[in-house]
Amino acid sequence: FGGKKLKGILERLNAGEVVVGDGGYVLQLERRGYVKAGHWTPEAAVEHPEAVRQLHREFLRAGANVLQTFTFYCSEDKLEISGNVTNITGAQINEAACDLAREVANEGDGLVAGGVSQTPCYLNSQNETEVKAIFKKQMDDFLKKDIDFFMAEFFSYVEEAVWAVEVLKTSGKPVGATLCISPEGDMSGVPPGECAVRLVKAGADIVGVNCHLDPLTCIRTVKLMKEGLEKAGLKAHLMIQPLGFHTPECNHSGYLSLPEFPFALEARAMTRWDVHKYAREAYNAGIRYIGGCCGFETYHIRAISEELAAERGFLPPASEKHGLWGAGLQMHTKPWVRARARREYWENLLPASGRPTCPSMAKPDDE
Amino acid sequence: FGGKKLKGILERLNAGEVVVGDGGYVLQLERRGYVKAGHWTPEAAVEHPEAVRQLHREFLRAGANVLQTFTFYCSEDKLEISGNVTNITGAQINEAACDLAREVANEGDGLVAGGVSQTPCYLNSQNETEVKAIFKKQMDDFLKKDIDFFMAEFFSYVEEAVWAVEVLKTSGKPVGATLCISPEGDMSGVPPGECAVRLVKAGADIVGVNCHLDPLTCIRTVKLMKEGLEKAGLKAHLMIQPLGFHTPECNHSGYLSLPEFPFALEARAMTRWDVHKYAREAYNAGIRYIGGCCGFETYHIRAISEELAAERGFLPPASEKHGLWGAGLQMHTKPWVRARARREYWENLLPASGRPTCPSMAKPDDE
Amino acid sequence: FGGKKLKGILERLNAGEVVVGDGGYVLQLERRGYVKAGHWTPEAAVEHPEAVRQLHREFLRAGANVLQTFTFYCSEDKLEISGNVTNITGAQINEAACDLAREVANEGDGLVAGGVSQTPCYLNSQNETEVKAIFKKQMDDFLKKDIDFFMAEFFSYVEEAVWAVEVLKTSGKPVGATLCISPEGDMSGVPPGECAVRLVKAGADIVGVNCHLDPLTCIRTVKLMKEGLEKAGLKAHLMIQPLGFHTPECNHSGYLSLPEFPFALEARAMTRWDVHKYAREAYNAGIRYIGGCCGFETYHIRAISEELAAERGFLPPASEKHGLWGAGLQMHTKPWVRARARREYWENLLPASGRPTCPSMAKPDDE
Amino acid sequence: FGGKKLKGILERLNAGEVVVGDGGYVLQLERRGYVKAGHWTPEAAVEHPEAVRQLHREFLRAGANVLQTFTFYCSEDKLEISGNVTNITGAQINEAACDLAREVANEGDGLVAGGVSQTPCYLNSQNETEVKAIFKKQMDDFLKKDIDFFMAEFFSYVEEAVWAVEVLKTSGKPVGATLCISPEGDMSGVPPGECAVRLVKAGADIVGVNCHLDPLTCIRTVKLMKEGLEKAGLKAHLMIQPLGFHTPECNHSGYLSLPEFPFALEARAMTRWDVHKYAREAYNAGIRYIGGCCGFETYHIRAISEELAAERGFLPPASEKHGLWGAGLQMHTKPWVRARARREYWENLLPASGRPTCPSMAKPDDE
Repeated sequence: FGGKKLKGILERLNAGEVVVGDGGYVLQLERRGYVKAGHWTPEAAVEHPEAVRQLHREFLRAGANVLQTFTFYCSEDKLEISGNVTNITGAQINEAACDLAREVANEGDGLVAGGVSQTPCYLNSQNETEVKAIFKKQMDDFLKKDIDFFMAEFFSYVEEAVWAVEVLKTSGKPVGATLCISPEGDMSGVPPGECAVRLVKAGADIVGVNCHLDPLTCIRTVKLMKEGLEKAGLKAHLMIQPLGFHTPECNHSGYLSLPEFPFALEARAMTRWDVHKYAREAYNAGIRYIGGCCGFETYHIRAISEELAAERGFLPPASEKHGLWGAGLQMHTKPWVRARARREYWENLLPASGRPTCPSMAKPDDE
Repeated sequence: FGGKKLKGILERLNAGEVVVGDGGYVLQLERRGYVKAGHWTPEAAVEHPEAVRQLHREFLRAGANVLQTFTFYCSEDKLEISGNVTNITGAQINEAACDLAREVANEGDGLVAGGVSQTPCYLNSQNETEVKAIFKKQMDDFLKKDIDFFMAEFFSYVEEAVWAVEVLKTSGKPVGATLCISPEGDMSGVPPGECAVRLVKAGADIVGVNCHLDPLTCIRTVKLMKEGLEKAGLKAHLMIQPLGFHTPECNHSGYLSLPEFPFALEARAMTRWDVHKYAREAYNAGIRYIGGCCGFETYHIRAISEELAAERGFLPPASEKHGLWGAGLQMHTKPWVRARARREYWENLLPASGRPTCPSMAKPDDE
Repeated sequence: FGGKKLKGILERLNAGEVVVGDGGYVLQLERRGYVKAGHWTPEAAVEHPEAVRQLHREFLRAGANVLQTFTFYCSEDKLEISGNVTNITGAQINEAACDLAREVANEGDGLVAGGVSQTPCYLNSQNETEVKAIFKKQMDDFLKKDIDFFMAEFFSYVEEAVWAVEVLKTSGKPVGATLCISPEGDMSGVPPGECAVRLVKAGADIVGVNCHLDPLTCIRTVKLMKEGLEKAGLKAHLMIQPLGFHTPECNHSGYLSLPEFPFALEARAMTRWDVHKYAREAYNAGIRYIGGCCGFETYHIRAISEELAAERGFLPPASEKHGLWGAGLQMHTKPWVRARARREYWENLLPASGRPTCPSMAKPDDE
Repeated sequence: FGGKKLKGILERLNAGEVVVGDGGYVLQLERRGYVKAGHWTPEAAVEHPEAVRQLHREFLRAGANVLQTFTFYCSEDKLEISGNVTNITGAQINEAACDLAREVANEGDGLVAGGVSQTPCYLNSQNETEVKAIFKKQMDDFLKKDIDFFMAEFFSYVEEAVWAVEVLKTSGKPVGATLCISPEGDMSGVPPGECAVRLVKAGADIVGVNCHLDPLTCIRTVKLMKEGLEKAGLKAHLMIQPLGFHTPECNHSGYLSLPEFPFALEARAMTRWDVHKYAREAYNAGIRYIGGCCGFETYHIRAISEELAAERGFLPPASEKHGLWGAGLQMHTKPWVRARARREYWENLLPASGRPTCPSMAKPDDE
């Protein structure tokens, strides 16, 4: 893979390639027993590296071009507040996480993105110096290790994201930035178009959204970002890493306001076929860095890779264990299951929930 | 753990202990990219041992007392028919799977169960000699390795299960046997009570059901088995490993007949709170070997362990990363999410599917 | 119509004719403002004869062969308890109701059935003499007027229904008897088959079920009645007047136990197409007296008449204002509505509730 | 009632009184067997006056202050196109309808509104002279009879409604005008605020919306009309007559685009409790003429009257047969039904559809 590795994230995007992102680590590792819900901190990178390594490896096999370091909420202030991690420092986690991502990325054609996310400090103080110092510290941890670019993600306020970008740009590495916002804009009401403009002006090479809302809503938000950039005469690559859940009734604050968050989201989970539609629509919207966030499991990432196989020119390793559009079912013992081995069947299926006493839509808590 | 390991499966059950089983390997490894749907064969034990090892480890951490070898459908006749595995023998898979289960079981208080399942040979020929030869061959693979007991599972016909038990009993090890049947009985119409009697008479130490139907339906079936045994004056331990999906509309042939099988079952997935109810009801029904089959993920097994923590006297390792009944949410940033950190909230929630254009019940294909 | 009127109810049924019954008066007149829910008494026959006359007339136009007198719960003991009627006697209501039914029946080919229903007296005393005296009094009211036959309906206990039949048979007129029971039997656990046998032995010429459960469930109950009669070597005509609501989750005590009863049943209402299926299945089950109870509106009765038009040899007057299977939509202004003017469209439609925050099934209060 | 009748519609509205409108005639009479779906013409006024009279009377008893003449689609061009009426002239229908409304209105405190609706001529020609001639002809029919004011309703294009108002104003009588539009505006894209301004400038005394969308959506539209009038410095009374169906997924063209229109709308029907919420919200929005259109049955109109009883100072006659908020259930035989005799129960109930294989939202045909 050595030759390919020469191609960095911007080379790929500049060349018009589709970059498949990875999926959601935090929720998936919660379900696997390694992350504590409510705290959501990434100490597993130190405590249970084999679990993190395995999930990285799954995403890589599923076709991801980028592995994000498992460093969500890994700023010192967040770790301290959460109280979940007492005997490990943020630096230890950050460094271990970089090593894990690098190790697995090198098993294939993978890039490593050092991930930085919103801080409690910003919410409490809005003090630019303090917040930037936190990002600087985390960046320095990453720079001790071999990462390819930075990703500032999960920001509710564009202002904090701009500060993150400004710090990360000092590294000389490419910087991506995604906000967890709705089409209405960030939490102070800055519309997506203006958010994108501010991020690009701050130095972001790639902008987009992640988390909080379902794929089609996130695509709408990224489209608004694109329009904003075009109006401002700016250029940047677009990326998207939405939820793997159906959230049609969500408002501005996203799925946190759903009564089902975070322990009863199962019925909202997307099928692989939902992901096919999402990947196609994201591609059609001009987005070229396409991944997932919370709720995106390995097979969802594979579905992105399979939907865009023609555009990318190849299928991922994990497709060896997956007949396209259900083709593997031709081997099933029951005739009626064999009859499902075709694209039209799965594209048109309206899956039942098996829960007749439950509603199909909830009332968000922020209404 | 050495001292504890002296206690075998029957010692534990005879002592009245709750034995927590593991979850479903095949569907989960399909989603992780290592098993091919339609074929459902376990070549990953040889091809990707790290992936199988990791899932074993998760189940162990979640409180499972037993790890089943990842040998589903691993009879030579099935492997040949499926055509998915050409360069690996069944013996290789069986032996590798035993080693993996043993390795991880030894990391904790785990027993290893060698798993044997229904064969195409039975469906085609119903020839006792041929079918028994297949079971004998697989048993011999296992006996080269260090397993604690045998588990004959996923049998639609009690006759075939009886043959499996008869073969496995020759090993001198304890034998469990579970059928994938409904309360109406096996596929030839033998009622659950009589199925249980036949299995116990054939030598099974543990009997019950697995797969095909949701937890509450499976409990009903095991209750019928229990009644049958009591009427016949027989004794055996009871076990259950149901689906992790809601299947209220299923008939005799179970979830294979649902239009959503196997690629759109997401909306039917049980929450951890559904599992709490299941574990309690199974316990109340007198079942002491309680696990899961397809759809049971790591956190579902942890939920069994947490519901029955008082009865077992301990919480599993993975509960370090899980506040009971949502307690971890007390740390959440949003006040309305913190308000969900209580048992009553999650016990009474009726989760929405986020899919208003989908029905809540399907029409099974076998109607 | 004079010539046709010579044919009484038994002549018609003996000749193999389909007899279309009328629909539900009480719920419909509640919605029109003339019956008080909770009391459910028929004083409107005296207070607002024009409203009762109009509903009779609609059912007749919709193809009903029988008009039941609007005398539900019109025994003196019930009227007294309900406290809703203070200045009118039961006799006055009964007589006014007979006149109204007769007047409208004479506008077409209609028979008048004098209706008698369960009494509070039975529930309180189970005293045969007292209960029979009440039926006798009501019967005498009817016999002052020109009615064609008697209908004992809405009995939860077959014992009380038998007493009613025994009294009504003394009139010399034909007697029908319907129970509001489930396939499990009456409220004392007498199975439907035995209920039917007892009623026929008491003298009922027509037996069946009415109210409390949806059409397909009621058909199952009538089938059990039929089997019971056949086993006993008895013969009787079968009739059915089910709810016009979907009640899939109901138990023994029927729709009274649904949380939606009686003021939020709208979403459960059957479409005319549901009625087509019902009418066909009832006919196929050998039932020849086919009508409806609570929830059956005028257009539902017309749907019975239209489904069985070939068997009866004619369409009812109200079909002048109804294109069969939506044919009238060929005139609609929107092209997509015109595209619905065909049978296949309406037969296969799965109608949405427009209520995404509501469940599709409730938990009955008698569980 | 003579004294009260001196108060015309404008006197009432000018005095700040709540005016309760009537419900939907066309759909209700279709279900009663007197109107042909697809044609939707009002020949029943001549053919079956007793049926029209009865529905007028029900609405009056339910508290309606206004009875609209049953003259929907009764322009000569529409009657000719529909082909449903061959031996009766439009003039005959219009005159008969006026007599029926007058006769019943005189039984209580009712006003008669002569109703005029959109014409095929407008859609085909947009010729102002021709369209106005049609309205003039219909107006002249009404002026031969004793009507209190005019109502131009069910207009998709404000231009045609303006022409209707201009014609009707020549009569010297008050004129109301309602459009069947969404918050997005009329079919040519004129926003609701501007629609209202144009109608008032044309001479309308009362403006608002009717039909096509559910109550809460219609309230939003009327609020936009109100804002438009306020911005323009104009004054007019506001009215609303929405659908009695839940249509959350509808777009601009309203419920005609729902797959359930017009023969499978049952599951969408509003309960009386839905109407309570609607009446309160409409009142709070400053609307004082509050009624219903298609799907509004007698008991829905009574619910408006009951919700606004304090504001109006009286309950309608039909409330004699209705315990407020379910109070009548205190008489019910089952204890669990008696427990429903309270406001909180009905206000919070989420009614189930009893249709687990059906979705809760449809895909409109105009998407």
